[in-house]
Amino acid sequence: MPTDFAATRALFDLPAGLVYLDGNSLGALPRAAAARVADTVTGEWGKMLITGWNKAGWMDQPARIGDRIGRLIGAESGSVVLGDTLSIKVWQALAAALALRPDRRVILSDTGNFPSDLYMAEGLCGMLGDGYVLKTVAPEDVLGVIDGSVAVMLITEVDYRTGRRHDMAALTAAAHAAGALAIWDLAHSAGALPVELARDGADFAVGCTYKYLNSGPGGPGFIYVAPRHADAALPALSGWLGHEAPFAFEGRYRPAAGIDRMRVGTPPVLQMAALEAALDVWDIADIADVRAASLALGDQFIAGVEAACPMLTLATPRNHVERGSQVSFRHPEGYAIMQALIARGVIGDFRAPDILRFGFTPLYIGAAEVARAVEVLAEVMQGNLWDRPEHKQRAKVT
Amino acid sequence: MPTDFAATRALFDLPAGLVYLDGNSLGALPRAAAARVADTVTGEWGKMLITGWNKAGWMDQPARIGDRIGRLIGAESGSVVLGDTLSIKVWQALAAALALRPDRRVILSDTGNFPSDLYMAEGLCGMLGDGYVLKTVAPEDVLGVIDGSVAVMLITEVDYRTGRRHDMAALTAAAHAAGALAIWDLAHSAGALPVELARDGADFAVGCTYKYLNSGPGGPGFIYVAPRHADAALPALSGWLGHEAPFAFEGRYRPAAGIDRMRVGTPPVLQMAALEAALDVWDIADIADVRAASLALGDQFIAGVEAACPMLTLATPRNHVERGSQVSFRHPEGYAIMQALIARGVIGDFRAPDILRFGFTPLYIGAAEVARAVEVLAEVMQGNLWDRPEHKQRAKVT
Repeated sequence: MPTDFAATRALFDLPAGLVYLDGNSLGALPRAAAARVADTVTGEWGKMLITGWNKAGWMDQPARIGDRIGRLIGAESGSVVLGDTLSIKVWQALAAALALRPDRRVILSDTGNFPSDLYMAEGLCGMLGDGYVLKTVAPEDVLGVIDGSVAVMLITEVDYRTGRRHDMAALTAAAHAAGALAIWDLAHSAGALPVELARDGADFAVGCTYKYLNSGPGGPGFIYVAPRHADAALPALSGWLGHEAPFAFEGRYRPAAGIDRMRVGTPPVLQMAALEAALDVWDIADIADVRAASLALGDQFIAGVEAACPMLTLATPRNHVERGSQVSFRHPEGYAIMQALIARGVIGDFRAPDILRFGFTPLYIGAAEVARAVEVLAEVMQGNLWDRPEHKQRAKVT
Repeated sequence: MPTDFAATRALFDLPAGLVYLDGNSLGALPRAAAARVADTVTGEWGKMLITGWNKAGWMDQPARIGDRIGRLIGAESGSVVLGDTLSIKVWQALAAALALRPDRRVILSDTGNFPSDLYMAEGLCGMLGDGYVLKTVAPEDVLGVIDGSVAVMLITEVDYRTGRRHDMAALTAAAHAAGALAIWDLAHSAGALPVELARDGADFAVGCTYKYLNSGPGGPGFIYVAPRHADAALPALSGWLGHEAPFAFEGRYRPAAGIDRMRVGTPPVLQMAALEAALDVWDIADIADVRAASLALGDQFIAGVEAACPMLTLATPRNHVERGSQVSFRHPEGYAIMQALIARGVIGDFRAPDILRFGFTPLYIGAAEVARAVEVLAEVMQGNLWDRPEHKQRAKVT
């Protein structure tokens, strides 16, 4: 049975009249998450207090949720765990992968990768010294430069600015052929499109949950370790909850078996509660249907904007297979244009230097919202409505 | 005006009849936190969506809350920031401190330190290689072994098992005299007793907020960097929110000025909201009064238990200046005894191998609860009520 998007829409709480095309940055509020968080605060924390770690299952949440997310990204059971932030999980994956290729020194990434991934890699190389180096090339050049010097390839599947999608299977195969390992950042993939980590042979993957998985602001990150590496990959950040026996309080670190070793400190129980409730939508939504609907909405948006706003330049590939779940246009006044849109109830976001970004999340956005977004964008562009001082003033977070 | 503990008690929501002596592990629920979290979920996330980062002040929360906690621990304004977990903050402080003493290779700690601190230090030494080593001695021996080989001394002020308190001023002075830096873990100090980081010359400090600061399960950690080091200390985990201009999305990492560089990834907004509301109790509570009341409750408990339960051995120093905010007793059957207490509505916790731990948090616990705890413990011990199969079965989290 195909996904009923009216039914999924009813599970979300969105302000009336708002056209929200920024689920690629922060997903909308699932009604169930509000209730679950309130119950976790008053019913669990308030009433169970410390016993909530056992009674309410807080301690098992990171692995339990990991399996639910694992099913959305083609991961084997028991190969995903939640915790920390995406940046921290990038560090862990990189450090573990480098240690599995001790004779190599190059981390390969691309200039379209999210800066925090690159910054973490840069920091790790600096800490390791000994010739470790981060090499970045243009996104379309990655395939051509994978060679026997590369220890680890670190790629975000969907480019946060352009929405361009890498070919996970082809790049992973090329990395493996060169003896390198592949780490995939699924920030703009998990919950947006089908991912097949096991089938495509990924060695590690990382991601966040506050975008297409709708866990709310600051929801936890996750990490995947392929089962073939799980007992060899060391977590680098060797915290007590990754210990084989955390409550034995031993003096020396012994990594837990399997994915649990990638846990570090105490999990953020309130954020986990929101996430767990947010995942309920996947009981009635199929990721393949979501993908098909998102591409259709994107096509509708591209056609509408190109017809009405010739001054905007499409930055996203038209080809479905090379596109993620967002559509971006370039304009030198992109910041002011986005502010003008937001002032008119159409929310996307801006990414320096000139990218207007619109995310298409069929769980709670449909053709009517896309039509309205096109209409408002056309008004703004055709009337130069962005060219006002109040739209040009930069906010702290843009 | 002395703190009105009836007024602070009224700010917390505790189950009727429960004697909760485990605020040293997870603080009780402040009524204001429940309301604040609910508002953050439905009023901010639900209604503002992505614009909450500016409109609701989510992005500034880690520094804003940092200053409020800073006032409780004697830190300079602008020297504390929230985020991640305590273990991650230990890693950052250690890595930054080691880099400030490049000619030395020893991290000095003690065997009473919380294992995660030691595990993170062990993992960091392993990653750095090059002769870096973690050296641990018995808690009372630290002062005698500080010498010119020590790069960094990493000490948790109050021992999580025994409740023994180190002398921060003396140890820090000794470290400095030997040319070493001092990192203080305030897990069992912040919100429990007066701390004077600036006065005592601490170089770095770290802590958690879910114990005596009542932020709820999985609340964020914090880090303090002395202003004299703030622009020299590199964060090691170089995430985008520690960048000088995170929203410029530059290709290379440039650390932010001051404490902001210790931020890593997206902050956990729901946990931060709970924490921010939980800190309101300090508007009417004075930390010196809390300390005095806690010591009095501890004295009452020690006297009562020693009179009624000679089979229990005090593990905590009697001397006030050497004691934190908890009292611990040893018994070979400590686990079963604690389970028997919990079954009778007195909640403390057990720490391997033989420690019964009771925390005294005057914000919501008073003399009547302590008297009741003594009474129940006496019943359990005098009647051997712990010696039943159901009390000996280990739970996952103990």
